[in-house]
Amino acid sequence: MKSFNFNTTTKILFGKNKAEEMIPEIKSRGNSLLLAYGGGSIKKNGVYDKVVSLLKDNNIKFKELSGIEPNPRISSVREGVKICRENNLDFILAVGGGSVVDACKAIAAGVSYDGDPWDFMMMKAKVKNPLPIGVVLTLAATGTEMNGNAVISNEETLQKRPMGAPSLCPAFSVMDPVYTYSVNKWHTAAGATDIISHVFEFYFTPDKDAFVTDGVAEAIMKTCIEYGRKAIDSPEDYEARANLMWAGTLAINGLLSLGKTGGGDWATHMIEHEISAIYDLTHGAGLAIVFPAWMQYVLDEDNAWKFAKMARNVFGVKIEDDIEAAKKGIEEVKKYFKSLDMPLSLKDVDIDDQYLEEMGEKCTLFGAVGVMRKLEAKDVTAILKAAL
Amino acid sequence: MKSFNFNTTTKILFGKNKAEEMIPEIKSRGNSLLLAYGGGSIKKNGVYDKVVSLLKDNNIKFKELSGIEPNPRISSVREGVKICRENNLDFILAVGGGSVVDACKAIAAGVSYDGDPWDFMMMKAKVKNPLPIGVVLTLAATGTEMNGNAVISNEETLQKRPMGAPSLCPAFSVMDPVYTYSVNKWHTAAGATDIISHVFEFYFTPDKDAFVTDGVAEAIMKTCIEYGRKAIDSPEDYEARANLMWAGTLAINGLLSLGKTGGGDWATHMIEHEISAIYDLTHGAGLAIVFPAWMQYVLDEDNAWKFAKMARNVFGVKIEDDIEAAKKGIEEVKKYFKSLDMPLSLKDVDIDDQYLEEMGEKCTLFGAVGVMRKLEAKDVTAILKAAL
Repeated sequence: MKSFNFNTTTKILFGKNKAEEMIPEIKSRGNSLLLAYGGGSIKKNGVYDKVVSLLKDNNIKFKELSGIEPNPRISSVREGVKICRENNLDFILAVGGGSVVDACKAIAAGVSYDGDPWDFMMMKAKVKNPLPIGVVLTLAATGTEMNGNAVISNEETLQKRPMGAPSLCPAFSVMDPVYTYSVNKWHTAAGATDIISHVFEFYFTPDKDAFVTDGVAEAIMKTCIEYGRKAIDSPEDYEARANLMWAGTLAINGLLSLGKTGGGDWATHMIEHEISAIYDLTHGAGLAIVFPAWMQYVLDEDNAWKFAKMARNVFGVKIEDDIEAAKKGIEEVKKYFKSLDMPLSLKDVDIDDQYLEEMGEKCTLFGAVGVMRKLEAKDVTAILKAAL
Repeated sequence: MKSFNFNTTTKILFGKNKAEEMIPEIKSRGNSLLLAYGGGSIKKNGVYDKVVSLLKDNNIKFKELSGIEPNPRISSVREGVKICRENNLDFILAVGGGSVVDACKAIAAGVSYDGDPWDFMMMKAKVKNPLPIGVVLTLAATGTEMNGNAVISNEETLQKRPMGAPSLCPAFSVMDPVYTYSVNKWHTAAGATDIISHVFEFYFTPDKDAFVTDGVAEAIMKTCIEYGRKAIDSPEDYEARANLMWAGTLAINGLLSLGKTGGGDWATHMIEHEISAIYDLTHGAGLAIVFPAWMQYVLDEDNAWKFAKMARNVFGVKIEDDIEAAKKGIEEVKKYFKSLDMPLSLKDVDIDDQYLEEMGEKCTLFGAVGVMRKLEAKDVTAILKAAL
């Protein structure tokens, strides 16, 4: 096992009617806040009314930022920074899914930064003294509710890039599985895909000695398999929604990287970001397309043991030969995504080969990506071609 | 899944030569500390010299409390409180295994309490403003390095009782697996037994819907099985020591209770405490004796599914009938403890039936114990008789 530091500071408030418990958490940190949300689904499902009445009942002043996009844009971040500064707000409350939370992290960092917040994504600036943020989560997917990472899109340059700092970990996250009942089939499926994909990113590293961490990862993969389809078919199945929601957090709160090389592979996420930067595809759907193609591309004699381990421990594959077991495991992953009605190729989402070279170049802007195998621009393009 | 709050604040510094990283953590919290340790093993394995030279090199003043017992006594706690008060110390550094850490938690709480620290164990006092504590861990076992709990023995009343508060979570824990190389076979085995027993306590609840939490629990059980014997046979096997060490933390840092009833069962631990309070038995050894007896006693038609789930998912039992699978699983647990050279009956550790009724009464001092089945005094005595 590699050495590591681990310190998750976010307070999780998980379960039915937990939103009320956020009030003392907010009050200990500020008196006025930015209430940020997305396209309005929280107005339909009652979450907005619940949050606003809690804030009002407790005399917490707030300004609103609405309309944060599914792939949150730097323009929304700039707008949020402006509102926070103009109104001297001292807290940010993100109500929504991962996109809203990610935008809020970038806003939190941007308020105290004397420059354009896109600089964080271009590695030109470091996060210092961000505003504290809190989360009311409405989607089980990105896991951003318990880490310091965010991904932001630039609609002018067609880039989608990550940023992160421990100080961007939310102070608290309210996770009420009931708030995810109204998530539609497509986004429920994309969310489950996103969760299992995070586990894959951490799981597929060359480490042979991180047994305990890999075991926890396998447990979370099995949770996605157990409940992904159930949540699609029975949107108000509390057990399914709750297990997926907590699995989503555990998948990317740091736990699955402990003792492993380089914090996971992440090539597949980098590749998918290039797709959704240009085509504004739902992130989880992009991952369902890219992950099996990545697995097939990087699989070789040296790493087959790891794909075979997943095949055996997660999908119950009984094949003794590692390469054959690995191939069967990859087939099972595809089958799983298919069972969620996710797309399996770029063609399925009407994407052709026009930008595949460009995506390869942009993906490797700061060098080769991945740790299971280092991928250069040509490798990325080859994987995308295989996913056509 | 039941509702829960989760907030682990301890910063984990895990890996080789991580002790140096504790210095800024200490300095941000105080200038003088109580250096507490046990019977002197840290002087033999070099950990004492390492820690003392780090403190001296960094101008951190300290007073020592040595000789903390394997089942830490309230008299040591009182002594520690006295030293902290007399010298106006503002931090406590526990260097050792769970006993040292537990004693330090009670000391930390006792310094600011105007009464006898045994009051915490008798539920007569609540923890307020404890001194901050840090840990340099030398034994993979109790998991106290990442939670706010402690267990203290009273040598006058022959009681062994828990206390706890979130504010007693260590500020940091240095976990260098190399520091556990010198742990002898007996304590390595007892440690692995303690770890898997913690997982059992959380696992065996009536909840049918905490799939993800149960899956994580099974992964940690499998880690104990994979590495327990290896660490005994090859004490300097870093992979084994590291996996066991991190499994020990995950087993009882709160993660395995999430979404489950009442924070786990814990009857077996309560029963074992009664044995080691009188006989000063190594806690893990007591657990190896009591757990199979508890499992056999509480197993019935209603809960067999859970024992069967463990049997199938952890030990690969293929039996379809739940009761039969459960019985086979309990046999496997016994076999595992035997493989670690742990005792399997009270007779194995020269304990007779003299105090079994008394233990039953003392164990249920504050009411029936356990959630898988509520145990009265007579049940506790019956389990102990079955373990003779």
